[in-house]
Amino acid sequence: MKKLLNKIDDVVVESLAGLAASHPTLVRLHPSVKAVLRADAPRVKVAVISGGGSGHEPLHGGYVGYGMLDAACPGEVFTSPTPDQMYEAAKAVEGGKGVLFIVKNYTGDVMNFQMAADMLAGEGVNVAQVVIDDDVAVQDSLYTAGRRGVGGTVLAEKIVGAKAEAGGSLEEVKALCEKVNSRVRSMGMALTPCTVPAAGKPTFSLAEDEMEIGIGIHGEPGRERMKLKPAGQIVEMMAKAIVDDLPFKPGDEVLAFVNGMGGTPQMELFLVFNDLAAYLRDRGLVIARSLVGNYITSLEMQGFSITLLKLDEELKVLWDAPVETAGLRWGR
Amino acid sequence: MKKLLNKIDDVVVESLAGLAASHPTLVRLHPSVKAVLRADAPRVKVAVISGGGSGHEPLHGGYVGYGMLDAACPGEVFTSPTPDQMYEAAKAVEGGKGVLFIVKNYTGDVMNFQMAADMLAGEGVNVAQVVIDDDVAVQDSLYTAGRRGVGGTVLAEKIVGAKAEAGGSLEEVKALCEKVNSRVRSMGMALTPCTVPAAGKPTFSLAEDEMEIGIGIHGEPGRERMKLKPAGQIVEMMAKAIVDDLPFKPGDEVLAFVNGMGGTPQMELFLVFNDLAAYLRDRGLVIARSLVGNYITSLEMQGFSITLLKLDEELKVLWDAPVETAGLRWGR
Repeated sequence: MKKLLNKIDDVVVESLAGLAASHPTLVRLHPSVKAVLRADAPRVKVAVISGGGSGHEPLHGGYVGYGMLDAACPGEVFTSPTPDQMYEAAKAVEGGKGVLFIVKNYTGDVMNFQMAADMLAGEGVNVAQVVIDDDVAVQDSLYTAGRRGVGGTVLAEKIVGAKAEAGGSLEEVKALCEKVNSRVRSMGMALTPCTVPAAGKPTFSLAEDEMEIGIGIHGEPGRERMKLKPAGQIVEMMAKAIVDDLPFKPGDEVLAFVNGMGGTPQMELFLVFNDLAAYLRDRGLVIARSLVGNYITSLEMQGFSITLLKLDEELKVLWDAPVETAGLRWGR
Repeated sequence: MKKLLNKIDDVVVESLAGLAASHPTLVRLHPSVKAVLRADAPRVKVAVISGGGSGHEPLHGGYVGYGMLDAACPGEVFTSPTPDQMYEAAKAVEGGKGVLFIVKNYTGDVMNFQMAADMLAGEGVNVAQVVIDDDVAVQDSLYTAGRRGVGGTVLAEKIVGAKAEAGGSLEEVKALCEKVNSRVRSMGMALTPCTVPAAGKPTFSLAEDEMEIGIGIHGEPGRERMKLKPAGQIVEMMAKAIVDDLPFKPGDEVLAFVNGMGGTPQMELFLVFNDLAAYLRDRGLVIARSLVGNYITSLEMQGFSITLLKLDEELKVLWDAPVETAGLRWGR
C-alpha cells in the first residue's frame, strides 16, 4: 500500500486538520467530536448538515461554508459517522431555524442520522432528513437497502445550501432537497480498485483489461464486469441507463456532472464529458449547466460517474448562487 | 494501459472539445489550430497566453477565462505545442495592448514560444515572454537547461492574469510575472509513475516500497529514489529544500500550495497540507493564502508537489481578485 500518511489511525484526523488549516476563514473543527463546522456558525438560518464515511473528499467537509453546508460529520474511511458526531455538530451550528440532515442512502448512515435526529428532537430542535438515493445501477447493494446515494448528493448540498442561505424555512429546504433527489440520477464505473488504509489491500480486483460498470463509491459491486471499451461506448451504456430511468425527455434542460473517482486524470474526465455531450444531444437533452472534476471520490480509484439533474428556473438560480467552500467556490 | 479514451491519436482533441462543451460561456476552441481561447476575446488588455504539453490538466486550458489566461496552447501529451499554435492563438486574442507568453522552462516550449514571438514581432505585435523556473529539485534535467517550471506557473498565471484584467501595461505585466517567478519555489515527489497514452507503458517504475523525491511533471528523474517514509518526513525534506532555497525568512507571509499529481486522493493532499503547515510554523513562516488540489498534474501519477510563494500586499490583492476559469473560480 502506497499512501501519503503518518499513522494509519490518524489519517482522517490529520486530513481534517489540513482542511481546516488551509481554509481557516471558511471552516473550523469541532473541539470534541470529528466534525467540520462553518467558521461563522451558528447563524440564523436552517442548518444544513451532511456526513458519511471519509475517503470521498471533497465530500462532505469540503462543502462546508457559505451557501452550502453548515457542518459535515466524517466517519473513518468508508465507515459511517456516529450519532454523537451528528448531534454535537448540529448543536454547534443550529441557529434556531432547525436542522436538515442530507443523508446518502447507506444503512449505517441512515440509522445513525435517525438516532441523532431523535436525540435532537428530544431537546426540542426541529430536525428534518432527506435520504439521497440517485444511483440507478443497482436496486439493493452491499451496504444499502434501495438505491445508493452518490453524485446527486453534491448537487443537492449545493442547491439546498443556497436555499437555506437565502432564508428558506426548514419545510421549504426539505421540500427542495426532495425535489432535487426526485430529479437526479447517477451511475458510476471503475477501471481500478482503491485501498482503504486500515485494510492495506485493494477492496476488489479487476483484470488489466476489465472494468466494472455500476460500481458504488466504496467499490461495492455494480451491474456488470466486462472488457474495457472505448470511452464513447462506456458513456453511452451509463448515460442510457440514467436517461431512461427518470426518464429525461427531449427538450429537458439538465445539469451534466462528470465526476472523477479520485485517481482519474482530468484530461480523461473532459474527454468523457465530450462523449456525454454528444450522447445527450442525440437524445434531445440540453446541457444548461455542467460540472467536471473530482467531487465525490473513492480514494485513488480510477473511474468516473455521470450524474444528470433535470433543471428548472428555481434550480438554475440556486445552482448559480454564490458558494464559498473548499470544494466549490464561485461568484460571491 | 487502462484509460478512458476512444482513439489514442484523438485524446487531446476530444479532451479539449469536452473542456469547451462543459464551459461554453468561458472558452471556445480556435477554429484551425489546437488552442483554447477566452470566449469573449479579443479584449482591450494585454493578452496573457501560456501553453505546453497536455497531460497536466487543468493547466493550461483550464485556466483560460476572466482574470487569468486569454489563450492556452496544448501540445500532444507531454509534448511541446508548435509555434504556429502560439502564433494563431495570439492573433486570435490580441487586443492591441500586446502579448505576454508565460513559458514553463522546458527546452521545446522555450524554443517554440521564441519562434512564435519572433513571428508576431515581425508583424508589429508587442510580445514579451517570461520563463518560469521554480523547481528547486534539480539544476538541469531530461528536458531542461536550468530549473524546470512547475507549480509556480499556476500562481503566476493567476496573479499576472489579474493584473492584465485590471488594465496593466505589457511592461507592468511582464515585470509582475518576473517578480512572481523570483519569489516562488517548488518541489515534487511521486509514489507511482504515469502512462502516456501513445507510449502505452509507464514512464518509469518504482518498487512497491519506493518513492522518488524531486520528480518532474513528466516523470523525469528527481533528486533521490528512496524507501517510502511517513508523510511528515517527506514534507519536511521537500519543504526544507524550498524554504532554504529562496530563502524564505521568519515572518514571511506565504501562499502555500499543495498540488496533487493527478492520482492522489484529496484526503492525502489535506493530510500533507497539515504536515506542511506544521513545518512552516516551526520555521516562522505565516501561511496567508493556500491552495490544495490537482492544479498541475501528470496524468494519473500519484504524488504531490509543494509550492511556496512569498507574498506582499500587491500579490495578495491580485491573488484574491475575481477569477472565472474551469480550473480556478471565485469571487466575481
